[in-house]
Amino acid sequence: MLLKEIFDEIDKRQDEMVKHRRHIHENPELSFEEVETAKYLADYYKSKDVEVTKNMGGNGLRVVIDTGKPGKTIALRADFDALPIQEETGLPFASKNPGVMHACGHDAHTGYLMVLADILREKKDQLRGKIVIIHQHAEETPPGGAKQMIEAGVLDGVDNVIGIHVMSAVDYGDVQYHKGNTQTSRSKFSIKFQGVGGHGSMPHLANDSIVAASHFVTAVQTIVSRRLSPFENGVVTIGSFEGEGSFNIIKDSVRLVGDIRSMSDETREKIEKEIERIAKGIGETFGMEVQVECKNDYPVLYNDPAMTDLVVDAIKEADIKEVKKIYDGGPQTASEDFAYYAKERPSCFYFVGAKKEDAPYANHNPKFDIREDAMVICAKTMAAVTVKYLMED
Amino acid sequence: MLLKEIFDEIDKRQDEMVKHRRHIHENPELSFEEVETAKYLADYYKSKDVEVTKNMGGNGLRVVIDTGKPGKTIALRADFDALPIQEETGLPFASKNPGVMHACGHDAHTGYLMVLADILREKKDQLRGKIVIIHQHAEETPPGGAKQMIEAGVLDGVDNVIGIHVMSAVDYGDVQYHKGNTQTSRSKFSIKFQGVGGHGSMPHLANDSIVAASHFVTAVQTIVSRRLSPFENGVVTIGSFEGEGSFNIIKDSVRLVGDIRSMSDETREKIEKEIERIAKGIGETFGMEVQVECKNDYPVLYNDPAMTDLVVDAIKEADIKEVKKIYDGGPQTASEDFAYYAKERPSCFYFVGAKKEDAPYANHNPKFDIREDAMVICAKTMAAVTVKYLMED
Amino acid sequence: MLLKEIFDEIDKRQDEMVKHRRHIHENPELSFEEVETAKYLADYYKSKDVEVTKNMGGNGLRVVIDTGKPGKTIALRADFDALPIQEETGLPFASKNPGVMHACGHDAHTGYLMVLADILREKKDQLRGKIVIIHQHAEETPPGGAKQMIEAGVLDGVDNVIGIHVMSAVDYGDVQYHKGNTQTSRSKFSIKFQGVGGHGSMPHLANDSIVAASHFVTAVQTIVSRRLSPFENGVVTIGSFEGEGSFNIIKDSVRLVGDIRSMSDETREKIEKEIERIAKGIGETFGMEVQVECKNDYPVLYNDPAMTDLVVDAIKEADIKEVKKIYDGGPQTASEDFAYYAKERPSCFYFVGAKKEDAPYANHNPKFDIREDAMVICAKTMAAVTVKYLMED
Amino acid sequence: MLLKEIFDEIDKRQDEMVKHRRHIHENPELSFEEVETAKYLADYYKSKDVEVTKNMGGNGLRVVIDTGKPGKTIALRADFDALPIQEETGLPFASKNPGVMHACGHDAHTGYLMVLADILREKKDQLRGKIVIIHQHAEETPPGGAKQMIEAGVLDGVDNVIGIHVMSAVDYGDVQYHKGNTQTSRSKFSIKFQGVGGHGSMPHLANDSIVAASHFVTAVQTIVSRRLSPFENGVVTIGSFEGEGSFNIIKDSVRLVGDIRSMSDETREKIEKEIERIAKGIGETFGMEVQVECKNDYPVLYNDPAMTDLVVDAIKEADIKEVKKIYDGGPQTASEDFAYYAKERPSCFYFVGAKKEDAPYANHNPKFDIREDAMVICAKTMAAVTVKYLMED
Repeated sequence: MLLKEIFDEIDKRQDEMVKHRRHIHENPELSFEEVETAKYLADYYKSKDVEVTKNMGGNGLRVVIDTGKPGKTIALRADFDALPIQEETGLPFASKNPGVMHACGHDAHTGYLMVLADILREKKDQLRGKIVIIHQHAEETPPGGAKQMIEAGVLDGVDNVIGIHVMSAVDYGDVQYHKGNTQTSRSKFSIKFQGVGGHGSMPHLANDSIVAASHFVTAVQTIVSRRLSPFENGVVTIGSFEGEGSFNIIKDSVRLVGDIRSMSDETREKIEKEIERIAKGIGETFGMEVQVECKNDYPVLYNDPAMTDLVVDAIKEADIKEVKKIYDGGPQTASEDFAYYAKERPSCFYFVGAKKEDAPYANHNPKFDIREDAMVICAKTMAAVTVKYLMED
Repeated sequence: MLLKEIFDEIDKRQDEMVKHRRHIHENPELSFEEVETAKYLADYYKSKDVEVTKNMGGNGLRVVIDTGKPGKTIALRADFDALPIQEETGLPFASKNPGVMHACGHDAHTGYLMVLADILREKKDQLRGKIVIIHQHAEETPPGGAKQMIEAGVLDGVDNVIGIHVMSAVDYGDVQYHKGNTQTSRSKFSIKFQGVGGHGSMPHLANDSIVAASHFVTAVQTIVSRRLSPFENGVVTIGSFEGEGSFNIIKDSVRLVGDIRSMSDETREKIEKEIERIAKGIGETFGMEVQVECKNDYPVLYNDPAMTDLVVDAIKEADIKEVKKIYDGGPQTASEDFAYYAKERPSCFYFVGAKKEDAPYANHNPKFDIREDAMVICAKTMAAVTVKYLMED
Repeated sequence: MLLKEIFDEIDKRQDEMVKHRRHIHENPELSFEEVETAKYLADYYKSKDVEVTKNMGGNGLRVVIDTGKPGKTIALRADFDALPIQEETGLPFASKNPGVMHACGHDAHTGYLMVLADILREKKDQLRGKIVIIHQHAEETPPGGAKQMIEAGVLDGVDNVIGIHVMSAVDYGDVQYHKGNTQTSRSKFSIKFQGVGGHGSMPHLANDSIVAASHFVTAVQTIVSRRLSPFENGVVTIGSFEGEGSFNIIKDSVRLVGDIRSMSDETREKIEKEIERIAKGIGETFGMEVQVECKNDYPVLYNDPAMTDLVVDAIKEADIKEVKKIYDGGPQTASEDFAYYAKERPSCFYFVGAKKEDAPYANHNPKFDIREDAMVICAKTMAAVTVKYLMED
Repeated sequence: MLLKEIFDEIDKRQDEMVKHRRHIHENPELSFEEVETAKYLADYYKSKDVEVTKNMGGNGLRVVIDTGKPGKTIALRADFDALPIQEETGLPFASKNPGVMHACGHDAHTGYLMVLADILREKKDQLRGKIVIIHQHAEETPPGGAKQMIEAGVLDGVDNVIGIHVMSAVDYGDVQYHKGNTQTSRSKFSIKFQGVGGHGSMPHLANDSIVAASHFVTAVQTIVSRRLSPFENGVVTIGSFEGEGSFNIIKDSVRLVGDIRSMSDETREKIEKEIERIAKGIGETFGMEVQVECKNDYPVLYNDPAMTDLVVDAIKEADIKEVKKIYDGGPQTASEDFAYYAKERPSCFYFVGAKKEDAPYANHNPKFDIREDAMVICAKTMAAVTVKYLMED
């Protein structure tokens, strides 16, 4: 049995997945700056009989495994960029790059897919069609690597795309899916409050931008609390309050940068409009010039129902011993630039539980960590989907 | 007439003052980092027959002009450090150091005093007693160079100290003084709000420190507006809101750094206590850990009445043609580490108008500038005070 | 055909419904004070052959129509209390009681049910079982009349309960239902901030409760914006800010009264806990004593699936010409003390569109109004449900 | 000695002062509604040989004591209105009028002056000139009784005016004065935020005026904290937040009423302008209509230096045994419509300590109380001033 052989290989090569993941974890690179990671991937595939395209739409890498036989083409996607977070895990393989951290599991995505790709390559004689491995850069930062790689042609000839995200808050052994709208749309906004600088002891001769921006932060909470229906899904986060200065100088200007999530365009537009109004109103209140920029970057991620059914069926039929449950986990508040693939091709993005009992930290937390053996589940479920997809029908 | 001769020299050497001022302006250095400026000063005095002590209490410089005759010892003080501000004046001699700027006039203080010191040295045969030139580092940042230079002995043998500040908001030709409490006491505080980081789309799993810190900024305004008597003098400024982060990561912690001014210890203590209470209350409100540090650095600056009378009389008697008015300008909200000299010796710190019609910007503004010919007024008034002080009685 | 006869009667007696509705509208009474309205109802039923129980659990009225034949017992419920709102509709039959208004349609509920009850009474020979008419007081104010009437035995012998709400925002001709959790749970909270009164010119000798309470209102917005998951349903409204005083007296205490909605006990408990924490934190911030009371009054309204199916089927089968659409309108944010009946008996509460084109105002708006002919739809749909329920099976 | 005789009479009639004060305290009347108090005063003077003018400019009373001999005319003024405060003193003679209280000492002002006036009348043969007793209504509420009585001619023929305020925070035995600007100017403002009402569970269909008004209250604090120089005197108090409503109805509009104090017109104008800007800015922020009204009512109270010297000298010379200290108490934050008399005639308003050890509550506090024997000091000091004024020169 082909799948059984693949699973055995995965079990054997688990340490290799861990090795790759730790190497990448230790050497994180920010979105659009993943030069070394891309090189590490290219070196890995160098002497293997696959077709590799480097620098695709940036630092992205496409690897094609061609069985030489007719059939469909499935793309498997993993992202490999890191975040501007100072790691606080205390892991032996913690980040060597100050202020940069793999706090979203992309190291694990890449680690499992490197090994799985190689195993599929070895077994390609028993497969049909083509497998496209998408090692994608810059998932975390708009415009995102997905869009760039698509523009560079990564989906040419591809019929469908499958992706995985490991979940630090979902039990090991659980696999989650959802049909239809699955992850939120995301907009990024930036607001500058321009006041007048001055000496800390003479507030009447200055116009304090930190005070105005703070009032904006308190007022902007009312969008979610008072402007949305309780049945609408929306989030407004100010992730960056750029107000560093000297303690005794009144800060002349402050920039706030933030993030909007929503499950519909109507909600997104309402939130964007309110942010602009509140920013202008606070500007008027404090006599400041205000500049507002807002850009919708990632669309709502839509999981194709048929592709999702195929994923669920494949995983159930494969009877993977590590998988304890597979169920509809509902929609999620996060956004993903996988959404761009899903707009181009019927696709499915699913979730693999990787909760570490002693590290119950959410994505993007400085202490984020996962169970490394969840990579085995990623590899086996993805193998099951790939084999079923290519071999049936 | 000695004073007449000195005034003539000052007029002749005005360009030299400007040259020194512009050199220092173009090469600003932050408090405690003024190595090149100190070297520039030391080089200037190197071949002159004065006694120079370098690295006094840090980067400070003491220059003693000894007339060889008995008499009192007067110290003339000028500060030479710059501020962490990005200059926006567009001057041809604007700062070459990004983010560092002479936005408080210390370049002019140093420029005039270098030339005046040399003129007094040349005329020392006509004088009595000693003149101590204090070129002080680090006025802007606690603990301040004054304290350090005093601890290093700069006031040993000194009877009284005189200092000047140029004023960008006071008309050229005006000289201001005030007796008694003249400038405020200053405290520096730092508050850390420790929440929980997380993904921007999942606020319920994180605890947003930017939101909490913003509520603190709005609440802290009530100290001045509701806790002080309308007849009490107090200011609370948050000069730094250190909340820079990624737009889609909920910020786990924020540090605020600020500044307290007051004209009495009672008011200062009330403000410090309220800041601590509000910080803790906001911490409780948002379920965050809060750390508050507060340090009183500069005391109230007290101008000795007798010394102030001497300054006023000397300037009036000298009949300086550039001085149009000399008057009590009232107390000021600013703080000065000259206050430390004034605690040790009967002293006077006075103010010289230097308003530039097309640059009406307050101290510490990125566009701060002054009329350079105000340095002539600094030099002549200080010369008048020195001569009267040393030669009379 | 019995139903046809009933519908004809309803059409004939439409003016009577309008007359009752307008009388009640013009004479609104606050919850628990509906003495005259209860009397009006009692007078209406006085000479009819029905069993009337007055003052049931307060001002409630139970009317039993006994067919004398065996069968099930269905209860039809309408509420008749008004709200503390100053009417601004300008209607000829606008409220005569200053500050009191039927701004939620209870006048229409009562108007249609009075006439329908009488028609069912006249047709009782053609029916089986019993019909219990519940004219309920005090729906708007906890503990609510439903709870009181249940405790007084209004459901004794009753098998199921049906209720209607007219909807000013739903198109005329639309009927909406939802199965399962349909309306939110509601809690009422009250918070007192106790500061220190004083003269408006001496804030330092007082402790301003209006300032503290205002900061509470801004801070409490963060519960919905930052503490709830985007997929959780919750609302916090401060409906009353009791801070009236003299313009130049610092207010010593303020009471806030508000309202919590949620679709689960978990969310409700989280919100209640956060309100208490924020209130205490703000108390600490401003040095005030704070008292918080919170009481969950109305539970989540659960529509029994089988009863809801019966309602939908009955309405569809009756083929009522005024009904254009019947559909699942989704859950609603409002709360209803009908929820208490639904906890005791399998019940269904459904919604009848009554939007007036020139009065698009939400419930509880001072300009709230409805199309009066929607009462015909209420009566016919309720008649259809009653006949199907009693006569089938 | 005349003054000795008067002092003896005052000592003898102390109980009568207390009786009057307690009667007035027990029967407080709001500004412009002091009908019964005015009647009580008129009755008191009815059978005495003085000239009484009732209803002067409202409920005011002028009583003229004419010695029949030539001389100057001095006016002694006491106010008699009460405040909209619910008394919480627990005194046996506490207010019988719910929500109305003498919480500012006007009862004591009136009590002592009634008795003093009668004593002066009895002694008028030993005096010269005229004494005008001004029993003034409506000091607490603009436009104030002073303005009205002046317009009605109360100062006709009067040369100078003297007034007293008892001080609950100043030690018994202390008398305070100040020359020049002594009490603040006062403006009253009123702001209406007009949102959209609605049901508490549907915030997205309403526009919550309580939220907007609360943000205004937090933002308006920045006027004093950030817009005024630390050396400017200003206070902004929101004394009334009129937001009472039903807990589950979103409040459609809120009115805030407040009070501005300042020691100069420049400061007052700056504050008024900022209040308007902040109100409009908050209106913009929350999409609400805003109406702002602002009216300057009481001017700065200016104590004439010569009249103040006379008051101080008279009190010192009289050697009153109850007076322990007389000193410059500095300017005060309170406002007084006595300022209108002081604009018309050289006048002096001074302060008599009346601190009760167990009731250290500020004016306008619900527990405000004073030492009743301070009325003796009021009477004796005022007698001393009157005698010196009329008899010397």
